[in-house]
Amino acid sequence: METSARIDKYLNDTLDQYLQTVMRLCRQPSVSARKEGTAECAVLVAEVLTEHGYQVQTFETASNPVIVGKLAGKSDRTLLFYNHYDVQPPEPLELWTSPPYEPDIRDGKLYARGAKDDKGELVARLAAVDAARTANNGELPCSVIFVVEGDEEVGSPTIAKFVQQHLDLLACHGAIWEEGQVSKEGPLDLLGRRGIIAFELSVESMKMDAHSGNAHNLPSAAWRLVWALNSLKDQHEHILIPGFYEDAQPVSEADRHLFEIYPNLEKMQQDQLDQFGIETFLGGRPGMDAATALFNPTCNIQGITTGYQGEGIKTVIPARASAKVDFRLVPRQDPDDIEKKLRAHLHQQGFDDIHVQRISAMWPARVEPDDPLVRLSSRTAKEVYGRETILYPMTGGSSPVYAFAKPLGNIPVISPGVGYWDSRTHAPDEHIRIEDFLNAARNIARIVDGFAEI
Amino acid sequence: METSARIDKYLNDTLDQYLQTVMRLCRQPSVSARKEGTAECAVLVAEVLTEHGYQVQTFETASNPVIVGKLAGKSDRTLLFYNHYDVQPPEPLELWTSPPYEPDIRDGKLYARGAKDDKGELVARLAAVDAARTANNGELPCSVIFVVEGDEEVGSPTIAKFVQQHLDLLACHGAIWEEGQVSKEGPLDLLGRRGIIAFELSVESMKMDAHSGNAHNLPSAAWRLVWALNSLKDQHEHILIPGFYEDAQPVSEADRHLFEIYPNLEKMQQDQLDQFGIETFLGGRPGMDAATALFNPTCNIQGITTGYQGEGIKTVIPARASAKVDFRLVPRQDPDDIEKKLRAHLHQQGFDDIHVQRISAMWPARVEPDDPLVRLSSRTAKEVYGRETILYPMTGGSSPVYAFAKPLGNIPVISPGVGYWDSRTHAPDEHIRIEDFLNAARNIARIVDGFAEI
Repeated sequence: METSARIDKYLNDTLDQYLQTVMRLCRQPSVSARKEGTAECAVLVAEVLTEHGYQVQTFETASNPVIVGKLAGKSDRTLLFYNHYDVQPPEPLELWTSPPYEPDIRDGKLYARGAKDDKGELVARLAAVDAARTANNGELPCSVIFVVEGDEEVGSPTIAKFVQQHLDLLACHGAIWEEGQVSKEGPLDLLGRRGIIAFELSVESMKMDAHSGNAHNLPSAAWRLVWALNSLKDQHEHILIPGFYEDAQPVSEADRHLFEIYPNLEKMQQDQLDQFGIETFLGGRPGMDAATALFNPTCNIQGITTGYQGEGIKTVIPARASAKVDFRLVPRQDPDDIEKKLRAHLHQQGFDDIHVQRISAMWPARVEPDDPLVRLSSRTAKEVYGRETILYPMTGGSSPVYAFAKPLGNIPVISPGVGYWDSRTHAPDEHIRIEDFLNAARNIARIVDGFAEI
Repeated sequence: METSARIDKYLNDTLDQYLQTVMRLCRQPSVSARKEGTAECAVLVAEVLTEHGYQVQTFETASNPVIVGKLAGKSDRTLLFYNHYDVQPPEPLELWTSPPYEPDIRDGKLYARGAKDDKGELVARLAAVDAARTANNGELPCSVIFVVEGDEEVGSPTIAKFVQQHLDLLACHGAIWEEGQVSKEGPLDLLGRRGIIAFELSVESMKMDAHSGNAHNLPSAAWRLVWALNSLKDQHEHILIPGFYEDAQPVSEADRHLFEIYPNLEKMQQDQLDQFGIETFLGGRPGMDAATALFNPTCNIQGITTGYQGEGIKTVIPARASAKVDFRLVPRQDPDDIEKKLRAHLHQQGFDDIHVQRISAMWPARVEPDDPLVRLSSRTAKEVYGRETILYPMTGGSSPVYAFAKPLGNIPVISPGVGYWDSRTHAPDEHIRIEDFLNAARNIARIVDGFAEI
């Protein structure tokens, strides 16, 4: 029997045992937003990893513990799995068909809070590693590391620092991100996430608001802020900060091709136009231009607050004004560098009265479509799903992928997983299809099997 | 005995009777903000005017009634008095030395809510007219009209329309505004009030807020508003709407001279700088430039609201944004014309997506320093106070003076009155000095006496 066949046999034979593990984890509430059961769930994850043969360490953080499980293989080449044991709050409870913490299997689906996000994903990966080991006569073909954190649903406030502090412990050659899904057309993967740096810009022009009859003589914080914001971007969406675009990686021919072959791109775009009630995208961009615009970094105003905002009028000159601004960054742009350039620009434009406070930052992260790990997972997907992975070159949002990819040596990161288009992640009746769970394990086991060779 | 001496004798002899009338009016609460006693006070004012020989009409409005009292004189030349019978709420009650609606005379002062603003003013004028009549052997030298409204303290929402609807009834050749005061240096008057037109500018770029990861493609209401606002005024405070300054009356040499001789102008300016904690006025303007800048019309942002305004960040593209903007206008500028020019400018700049809603408007009002009524009141002031009126050419704020001055044929309006620098208008322990009450009556009686001749 071939390795692949042995993998599939093992997973078919043991499926029920892994579903039991999913349910065991899902019975334990672990809502990070209110620290409900997260400590208990961390202990449970450590137990489960230990039972599967991993060397387990629990690291306390400023919030919930991070669990690291390691298993040495035949090769030093190491694959890292990032997952999390916390979940979103289950409310509204009345919309669940079966209670969120009483896992229920019906119609080939497993229902529970966390069934998909992210306890089902975690267990499918444990199954995959077990299958790869069994299929290779008990010897794991590559080394693996599981990193399972407890604060993903509240924005992973501690994970970047944790990685920075444990570079040796987490040294690896590639990673599998927390979750993935199949569409009606086949398995999906995402090659890039944009970075982000967000600021609060604020100005105080006087000690207190003044009567607007003094507007000829007294300085307005509102006007200072409007002029400062206006200096950042022109009406053609061109960002005016000198050097802003310098390091931005443009869309490649390969990426353009991926957009061209992406299934139903036009319908997705039309759905978005309809959802927001607009005729065209910015600049009247047609389909492919709108798609490749994901490689344009952006400057967005999240909100502005100044002066009187109630009904009618109030004749005041605002003494204080502030805006929240975020820049989405594309690969090779560096939030630290953008912050320097923003500050230099405001200074150069005479806006030294604008106080710039950095609130948060994430780096862009990207794997190239011809990366060996991407190509390996496309081959394994073809075996399991009958077609290669459908690759989307870039998403508009940001993710803590960067927290691993960059400090661990620009490792490739991919996202195969157990979800599908109706998994109801974060919503009532969250569930996975058991067939998807099995396929994800079959796929990931093949990736583990092949990882040492790429 | 000269007329002036007869005026003074009458007022000295009858002072107590008029103070009793002030107290009678002050005993009646009349808080327009909560319609407390205003109906009763309207009846009382009509009674008092009738007792003094006026032909009285009570006009119902959408809010409190307007009382009009007319008295024919020897001459058809008619002087109009504008006053109001409503008061500000008396709270906080615990800060009053004697209760606000129990008028109390102590140390030569009369304490009560309304003693100054505006019941004391009203009665001093009634006394002045009576004195002028008595001093002329029972024949009033000019005709007079009293207009006494009940909504001044809530912004006079109905008075402009009332005047428009009663142009014949209110036809006159000059007016005395509701209140006035003396400073330590002598009696004051204000020659000009700016106009104002206020708008809400709003924009909706999409049906709902979007995730900021879509900022490369989805239109932001916040940016549209920032760009539209920026198009209104540059960083040198120059308003960019074509034709905006066209009709603005510049500061004259006569006005410049009045600023130059105004007592303690420099100290007033330094106090204002200190109050708002700033080093210099806009543009670093020194004293005289800051004073004459009252003749610069302004464009002020009262407030801006858009997107997320809470703690930290929220990665949204705002679908809605709005700003409240007011323009203060100088004489000869017309709010209707400014509205047209604003709309044309936004259209021409490509901001048809910005919705412009006019919220309110007042016209500028101005009397020239060499107007015969101003010169008359300066002469009478010299007799009563020992020095001519100190004239301030323009104030930054706006006032319903325009509601009378313009529709009644650009009549001159002056403001002699009973107040002084510590009358505590709108505050606890509101009061007048009885000497100021008497002097105001003496002064205004002389104006009534002389009005037919100018």
